[in-house]
Amino acid sequence: MKIYFATHNPGKVREFKEILNGIAEVEPIDVEYTEIQSDDPQQVARVSAKELAEQYQKPIVVEDSGLFIDALNGFPGVYSAPIHKQIGLSGILKLMEGISDRTCSYRSAVGYCSPGSDAVTFLGIERGTLATQESGSHGFGHDPLFIPEGSSQTYAQMEDVSKVKQFRRRAVEQLVEWLKSK
Amino acid sequence: MKIYFATHNPGKVREFKEILNGIAEVEPIDVEYTEIQSDDPQQVARVSAKELAEQYQKPIVVEDSGLFIDALNGFPGVYSAPIHKQIGLSGILKLMEGISDRTCSYRSAVGYCSPGSDAVTFLGIERGTLATQESGSHGFGHDPLFIPEGSSQTYAQMEDVSKVKQFRRRAVEQLVEWLKSK
Repeated sequence: MKIYFATHNPGKVREFKEILNGIAEVEPIDVEYTEIQSDDPQQVARVSAKELAEQYQKPIVVEDSGLFIDALNGFPGVYSAPIHKQIGLSGILKLMEGISDRTCSYRSAVGYCSPGSDAVTFLGIERGTLATQESGSHGFGHDPLFIPEGSSQTYAQMEDVSKVKQFRRRAVEQLVEWLKSK
Repeated sequence: MKIYFATHNPGKVREFKEILNGIAEVEPIDVEYTEIQSDDPQQVARVSAKELAEQYQKPIVVEDSGLFIDALNGFPGVYSAPIHKQIGLSGILKLMEGISDRTCSYRSAVGYCSPGSDAVTFLGIERGTLATQESGSHGFGHDPLFIPEGSSQTYAQMEDVSKVKQFRRRAVEQLVEWLKSK
């Protein structure tokens, strides 16, 4: 089978292709789509996957991820990307000044839908802590602040960051299991 | 004519009724609706008004407002309400520590749509500065920080705050002019 991935991110396409290898062929589909506002990333992915599947009459997968800081009630969360453009990494560090609980998680929500069916969604979570300063130049977004559990380095300090990241992989692997069970 | 206002906020309903008095009857409609993600508040209002007008087959008005801080590239902006729940007023003050440019604006986007027509939107802007500490207990949201241009007090220090606020009024008055011209 063939799954159409609504993304402009070639790195995500490579990752999906690798994980779905042998299960489904992944083809990027070049489309701008609007996401709904919700504090639940799975709800956002569900609505997008359903709308795109009906619009294109193809099996569609979407993915969105964000950083959720425990002491800030999940901020920046679902709106990580637009908030990063506004306040940057320095804004996050400033908000965390004097706060000792620096635990956080990266979360990836994957939505999948075939035309005429309900959408299904999968959540991948990776726990970590927030560094006290930016470190590293690999990856993107909040990677220079995110220290995954069990590591002493930020994601941005790891040369093979795209292979090391677990949160998206965990969501996509759930999709693989679901597709196998169909 | 009758306009249906999709809101759960009785204060906004009173304000709309007063400004639209003699032009249209305003009736609140009790509905949960999802907004799209966009950094353009008018685009958010446009899509909501159109969807609700077609769904209910009635003329629909929607309104959403937020605080846009110049030095923070418009943060918290369109997502003011959810971000306020996460980081509160103290988060805004922390982000603004050491920043001398404290100019900001409250912005209200009003969307209106009749079934079968395109939606129209109106933007009301009120300029102000951000206080260095919370003051006052009237109003809601970011009112304890917002000092409107020409004032030395925050909105929350004004007992008649709902009558004093200009940004929403400015948007609704544009709707009035538009309705009159039809």
